[in-house]
Amino acid sequence: MKLVCAQNQLSTNLSLVSRAVAARPSHPVLANVLLIADAENQQIKLSAFDLSLGIQTSFPADVEEGGKLTLPARLFTDIVSRLPEGDITLSTDTEADEPTYLTTITCANGRYQVRGLGAEEFPALPEVEEGETIQLSAIALTEGLRNSLFSASPDETKQILTGVHLTLKEDGLEFAATDGHRLAVVEPPVPEATEASSKKKADLQELDVTIPAKALQELTKMLDRQSESSVAVKFDRGQAVFEWVDQRLTTRLLEGQYPNYRQLIPKQFGYQATVERRLLLSAVERIAVLADQKNNIVKMTLNNSKGTLSLSVDAPDVGSGEETIPAQITGEDLIIAFNVKYLLDGLKTLNTSEIQMQFNTPTSPAIFTPLGGLKMTYLVMPVQIRS
Amino acid sequence: MKLVCAQNQLSTNLSLVSRAVAARPSHPVLANVLLIADAENQQIKLSAFDLSLGIQTSFPADVEEGGKLTLPARLFTDIVSRLPEGDITLSTDTEADEPTYLTTITCANGRYQVRGLGAEEFPALPEVEEGETIQLSAIALTEGLRNSLFSASPDETKQILTGVHLTLKEDGLEFAATDGHRLAVVEPPVPEATEASSKKKADLQELDVTIPAKALQELTKMLDRQSESSVAVKFDRGQAVFEWVDQRLTTRLLEGQYPNYRQLIPKQFGYQATVERRLLLSAVERIAVLADQKNNIVKMTLNNSKGTLSLSVDAPDVGSGEETIPAQITGEDLIIAFNVKYLLDGLKTLNTSEIQMQFNTPTSPAIFTPLGGLKMTYLVMPVQIRS
Repeated sequence: MKLVCAQNQLSTNLSLVSRAVAARPSHPVLANVLLIADAENQQIKLSAFDLSLGIQTSFPADVEEGGKLTLPARLFTDIVSRLPEGDITLSTDTEADEPTYLTTITCANGRYQVRGLGAEEFPALPEVEEGETIQLSAIALTEGLRNSLFSASPDETKQILTGVHLTLKEDGLEFAATDGHRLAVVEPPVPEATEASSKKKADLQELDVTIPAKALQELTKMLDRQSESSVAVKFDRGQAVFEWVDQRLTTRLLEGQYPNYRQLIPKQFGYQATVERRLLLSAVERIAVLADQKNNIVKMTLNNSKGTLSLSVDAPDVGSGEETIPAQITGEDLIIAFNVKYLLDGLKTLNTSEIQMQFNTPTSPAIFTPLGGLKMTYLVMPVQIRS
Repeated sequence: MKLVCAQNQLSTNLSLVSRAVAARPSHPVLANVLLIADAENQQIKLSAFDLSLGIQTSFPADVEEGGKLTLPARLFTDIVSRLPEGDITLSTDTEADEPTYLTTITCANGRYQVRGLGAEEFPALPEVEEGETIQLSAIALTEGLRNSLFSASPDETKQILTGVHLTLKEDGLEFAATDGHRLAVVEPPVPEATEASSKKKADLQELDVTIPAKALQELTKMLDRQSESSVAVKFDRGQAVFEWVDQRLTTRLLEGQYPNYRQLIPKQFGYQATVERRLLLSAVERIAVLADQKNNIVKMTLNNSKGTLSLSVDAPDVGSGEETIPAQITGEDLIIAFNVKYLLDGLKTLNTSEIQMQFNTPTSPAIFTPLGGLKMTYLVMPVQIRS
């Protein structure tokens, strides 16, 4: 194998795939990236796979002699990222009778040798041959993910709740995530062009899968610079594959029954408050300093006659705080308490200038919705307090 | 006590003094900042003191009623930093018969109460009444500190080596720091105006002190925005005090005999190499990736006939690397090895475009100096290698 490529392209693509390299690899080859030099198409294909998440990417190179091998991901990435800009040459003896996979990296002033492993030891990234395929704009996909991911549970023992649930509906895709205390449901706008390709729409209505949040976080990072692209999403029983331009992300699905979250969302409300989001967010951020001293619980008071929403915390021996902002209120006065973290997460994510909050009783779910923005519902369970 | 001040001024000054608040206070009041509202001078004075490092700062305020008390540093700083810009009001009952020190902080939409402690419990910051005073420009002081601090030992058990040694010489101030493996000696340029005030210059020649690096790191951060100022430095046997404009930093001195570092610096050299600093630094940064796999040791080879300096690492089972850059060399060929970390630290700090390196044997100290810059010597002990 012998090739010349641009340092910045190799470096960018290495750091992209590195996210799928196992932190504690169960087999030495899983600490490596697979490098395929394709002489026919004059390109390099890089892959990494931790047996759950797989990332593949390709970019043009001057391939004099094709070949494939795997190289230690971290060492290779660290060296290449520090090389000066410009052309670098990679060469190795993959075609030798007893290849050592010792790869030579040459740049202007330096010469490095890194020992690799044979490509045949590297597991193949999963394919979805049968199953559903839909096309989504990168923007819609990113919006759906950004606005749901934050509600998934970071606790690995919560299994199915560590994922985001995707439902393919007749009129688009619905994203949902919950950690048992709060729930985010998002339906990003779907352009006309989006359609299911392999089956009729009527058959698709049932399709739903739960994808590990970790893989989706990597996906949002990768899509960051792809706002113009269309992403092909393929599912089968065990895998999801996302493909666009020169990149591809595969992930296993989470097994188990996802909670029937639709039934948790109240249809009618006794109270409603509309507030300026930034005003409420800053107030919650300040009061959080004191809530931090006392179980993170903050008390919210709606005062209909004054047209105000107040937040308060009373932390004995430490101090107390109260913030009051104007609010348009429907319904009588109400006192309800929340974990301040859930308020903060929601207020940071809903990105319209005004938001609407809806309540029934101090112990039933509260609903936060952006006004005039994305079709999104954020549900938070209140905390019961002794009055 | 009652006063009105600007949120951004209170916040900035609180975060300045917070650096001297004890992380694990031995007494509750040491977790607090002392706040003195001075009605006569219409200013607020804030102090924090962890019994080793003390920081004091003052700024203007609208003091309606003077008073003093201490407030929990972290909680107070966290609340104030999040308040909206504009005026905030502080009021408390310091003058009551049995004061509770419950302080009320009021801003546009919010009202906070924080419980403090009496000012009388707060230890006084040390004063240097007798002793030496010198005036230094903030720029010279910062240059001396920045270029020596990185060589002090971070290991608390190394006692006197965790400090920077300051010597007052007839023609200025000398800064030195060593961790036993490398040594930095700096003599920043001293403007004409600088002079010792309390004694004659002849008497001052003997003065030397060792100041904890931690305190000096805080000092450099505080001086960052004070490039125009002149700093008064006062010493006695146990304390050093730095004073400028509205701020003051006090620190205890380290006890013990500082190593006689001057005798470690060779006077004559058999080899000399002049290189472009950035070129060598990038090469060392790249080779460090491989050195990291093998004791951090890098081999340096001077080749007189080729006019090159090469760096190489050979890490069995992992790989190898070599970097070669042009160098002006005096003396025969030489192979000498270093801990890559010490090279990196020095090359980052010496900030001229060219540097000079001087050597005698592979086991005697190597000297790095900036060419045409600050008067500075960086000494590194080589590592003995089997050839």
